[in-house]
Amino acid sequence: MRFSKRMDNVKASAIREILKLTQNPNLISFAGGLPAPELFPVKEIKEITNKVLDTAGEKALQYSATDGFDPLREGIVQLLKEKNIKKIKRENVLITNGSQQGLSFSGKIFLDPDDIVLVESPSYLGAINAFRASGCQFVEVETDDNGMIMSDLEEAIKAHDRVRMIYVIPDFQNPTGKTWSLERRKKLIALANEYDLPVIEDNPYGELRFDGEAIPPIKSFDTENRVIYLGTFSKTFCPGLRIGWVLADEEILNKYILLKQGADLHTSSLGQRQISLFLEEYDFKGHIESLKKVYKERRDLMMSSIKEYFPDVVEYTYPKGGLFTWVVLPEGIDTDKMMVKAVEKGVAYVPGGSFFPNGGHKNTMRINYSNMPNDKIVEGIKILGKVIEEEIK
Amino acid sequence: MRFSKRMDNVKASAIREILKLTQNPNLISFAGGLPAPELFPVKEIKEITNKVLDTAGEKALQYSATDGFDPLREGIVQLLKEKNIKKIKRENVLITNGSQQGLSFSGKIFLDPDDIVLVESPSYLGAINAFRASGCQFVEVETDDNGMIMSDLEEAIKAHDRVRMIYVIPDFQNPTGKTWSLERRKKLIALANEYDLPVIEDNPYGELRFDGEAIPPIKSFDTENRVIYLGTFSKTFCPGLRIGWVLADEEILNKYILLKQGADLHTSSLGQRQISLFLEEYDFKGHIESLKKVYKERRDLMMSSIKEYFPDVVEYTYPKGGLFTWVVLPEGIDTDKMMVKAVEKGVAYVPGGSFFPNGGHKNTMRINYSNMPNDKIVEGIKILGKVIEEEIK
Repeated sequence: MRFSKRMDNVKASAIREILKLTQNPNLISFAGGLPAPELFPVKEIKEITNKVLDTAGEKALQYSATDGFDPLREGIVQLLKEKNIKKIKRENVLITNGSQQGLSFSGKIFLDPDDIVLVESPSYLGAINAFRASGCQFVEVETDDNGMIMSDLEEAIKAHDRVRMIYVIPDFQNPTGKTWSLERRKKLIALANEYDLPVIEDNPYGELRFDGEAIPPIKSFDTENRVIYLGTFSKTFCPGLRIGWVLADEEILNKYILLKQGADLHTSSLGQRQISLFLEEYDFKGHIESLKKVYKERRDLMMSSIKEYFPDVVEYTYPKGGLFTWVVLPEGIDTDKMMVKAVEKGVAYVPGGSFFPNGGHKNTMRINYSNMPNDKIVEGIKILGKVIEEEIK
Repeated sequence: MRFSKRMDNVKASAIREILKLTQNPNLISFAGGLPAPELFPVKEIKEITNKVLDTAGEKALQYSATDGFDPLREGIVQLLKEKNIKKIKRENVLITNGSQQGLSFSGKIFLDPDDIVLVESPSYLGAINAFRASGCQFVEVETDDNGMIMSDLEEAIKAHDRVRMIYVIPDFQNPTGKTWSLERRKKLIALANEYDLPVIEDNPYGELRFDGEAIPPIKSFDTENRVIYLGTFSKTFCPGLRIGWVLADEEILNKYILLKQGADLHTSSLGQRQISLFLEEYDFKGHIESLKKVYKERRDLMMSSIKEYFPDVVEYTYPKGGLFTWVVLPEGIDTDKMMVKAVEKGVAYVPGGSFFPNGGHKNTMRINYSNMPNDKIVEGIKILGKVIEEEIK
């Protein structure tokens, strides 16, 4: 039996093999990007589900519209207006099966084989894999503590004929935890306008800011409707329901809706109504505040533990929000190989190499602080510090 | 801004424009493929959800495995073993976001641009659209009351170089309501083996048999692990949760799992646990019996109404199960155009032309009997009979 050529681009990533090491439930895992399950509003979801089934049970269990449940789309519009994204209405919103689905559709809509997508170096693994299925090439653009370096971005655009899309995560980036400055955001829009390129702004972590003032999303500066904004309730509510969204210009969104129709008809009717009712009747912002309180404490504890237990030569990001910090070990250390030793000692992380679509950077790692309780964070970082120390020797 | 070449193959189908006519809630609609919502086990789903959230709330709301919730996969294996599909285990099952997702993945896995997929003539619109996104070509194979005509199938395989996949719906086919004989099923396997082709067996309606004995699925005769079997709970439980599955050889299934990972990470954790608990603790078979009782009554009523109210020159299928009958009007009548008149009089159906990927057959229509109560069925068919009569004059 033969498979399509496309499938040559769809391969199990090495990372998935490595992450199989993390199945042991006793492991202290800084590997996933999982929210803290003890903070899920289980009681409220029970109340909501009963209410949805009592008042609209037949509709909540029936087929529903491809673009999504209108009150939820309206609710999302309201949330985004508060983030300074203006002049939008529910017709700009498609509900997706998590924001991963928005990433997957973006690749299909904009990328032919050998087209180029520009990404931050490093970038989100799930996006890289989703885009790669289109047979595209990646050009990585350098980032510093203020985000993607705009002169490098412009050079990359000029240097390649087939640049078709820019993909960025400006808030508490995955994997680095870095956040773009206001200036870089505005400059990105200017460049995208000048070179007529679509921008995919992926913002799963933006609500989880612990320090400083929120910076408006790139979409809020979008003068030509060329930014496609991806959001999700996975980090602010719960990921298990798989509810995300795409916000875009109506003409562009129509392409996403057509793909959604062919991909799975629509997102869970019940799941959409559950979240919609939570937005309507419960204190969503208060809930996010309670998440931030816990995550900030974990971030603080992780960063102080890293400072205390990691060798001095190690560099790392101090994230102002989100779920991750990013660690750079001395050149020559291979965090893929080190992972085996770390897991033996009871700690897991994600080796950083897989976040670089064009390879290299084996001396990096992504560390998550949202999913482990305080004592495990300290214990895990202490162990990891020793593992690193032995590696450096 | 420019879009990928692939998007040229993804277009709004004419049918969607026509179906916009059916938004009026007072319309008697035979258009959708919707189950009867009054038969959804709302009370049971409430009980189940409370139990899932009480006993495993954190897990039901967290990220979960791409391949699916193991107890649900096991439950599906048990259901399929009873259908005479042997030698399977949970590792052969991937949980998808409805079986539409399995169709979409099948096109991606087997079809490159200009490859050929062989389908029944007519075939399911959602599958045609999903496959078309790959840029494939369709060759339609004639069917009679016993299913696809096997000599025509073999001729089609021999006549074309790039045949890559056979797609069939052997039980109560959408749109025709026809069911394949045992002999044809066995012959299909023989031909697929001979010409080394994968078979996509789509079986959303198989459980809903009103008359006669069940015929085992094609998958049950699969000696070389080349049948990919798609199933769903949309017609036997409820479609709103979007839970379907792919059953395949492990090596083939691994490709579906990789696509699922990139497409949306996994299917709703809560939705999977809801259905799994229903299978474990409630009377799933009893529930299906109660559905069949109602649907059989509606089928009977619709068929007797058609006999009474449709002009004698009209031909139609007498389905032994499923949700649809298929109507062939005299040549020259255009059911697209007739739809406007029918909707004016208060009745909707699906014009049949869009089920033929290569066009033509405008004189056909698909009529659904599962979604309307008895009185509306009689009233609607009476109206439709008059509309057809005027058209024939």
